[in-house]
Amino acid sequence: MSKTFYEEFAVGDASETGRYRVSPEEALAFARAYDPQPFHLDADAAKASFFKRLVISGWQTAAITMRLLVDARSAEGGVLIGMGVDELRWTAPVAPGDELRVRSEVVEMKSWPGGKPRGIVRFRNETINQDDVVVMTHIANAIVPKRS
Amino acid sequence: MSKTFYEEFAVGDASETGRYRVSPEEALAFARAYDPQPFHLDADAAKASFFKRLVISGWQTAAITMRLLVDARSAEGGVLIGMGVDELRWTAPVAPGDELRVRSEVVEMKSWPGGKPRGIVRFRNETINQDDVVVMTHIANAIVPKRS
Repeated sequence: MSKTFYEEFAVGDASETGRYRVSPEEALAFARAYDPQPFHLDADAAKASFFKRLVISGWQTAAITMRLLVDARSAEGGVLIGMGVDELRWTAPVAPGDELRVRSEVVEMKSWPGGKPRGIVRFRNETINQDDVVVMTHIANAIVPKRS
Repeated sequence: MSKTFYEEFAVGDASETGRYRVSPEEALAFARAYDPQPFHLDADAAKASFFKRLVISGWQTAAITMRLLVDARSAEGGVLIGMGVDELRWTAPVAPGDELRVRSEVVEMKSWPGGKPRGIVRFRNETINQDDVVVMTHIANAIVPKRS
């Protein structure tokens, strides 16, 4: 099923991505590069932290969510261009070794102001772990080309 | 100036981080891992894309923003725990080789519901490139411990 153009989407469209397991090594590499805080870097230090255990960076959860969505869109023949994100919430911690997937639903569609041949498709995305716990939610505003 | 506890923040506090140059190699590594789309991976393919040139993933801009903020907070003796993000917008493309910094301002503070010894500090963050163009804006909702 092709999902390249605005006209191919509809409010209520729901889908689920593949899965992504974040290894302890990848979690550590991301934290060292982008979020070097004790509760992401060191299991002992993490025990004394807000989280009480080692967790991955929330921004890595977001990046993995993007990867899963890009793979799904690319399989449908489309690209994923983000204009922005609303109401992003980290609703539960993600531990190194967890396996994530994303449930996605189109919640709103609107034409681009000024009559350009594109539209904005708003997706409500839920990132879910291997125990079916929702770990992150957000609204993604995607720029999608129109056929005409 | 220590910024560890909720009581040490005030609405209107403004600050600016250090700078971070994203190398072409780092941009490519991030794109391969988390956002493998043609306009992030290949200069020729990028010319035919929405962006007309190679750009880094918006999620890498977000991750670099986090790194700059974590370094600044850590120099003040604090940690940065995100509850969520509102109104994130990618306002201009970021090219491999660009140098980013973040301007941050406290826009709202509120106690945690239920009287727990913590509060929520809302920051308005602007990520800016070497030409003073704002490339990303967002509101970060941080969980900050209270002294009492």
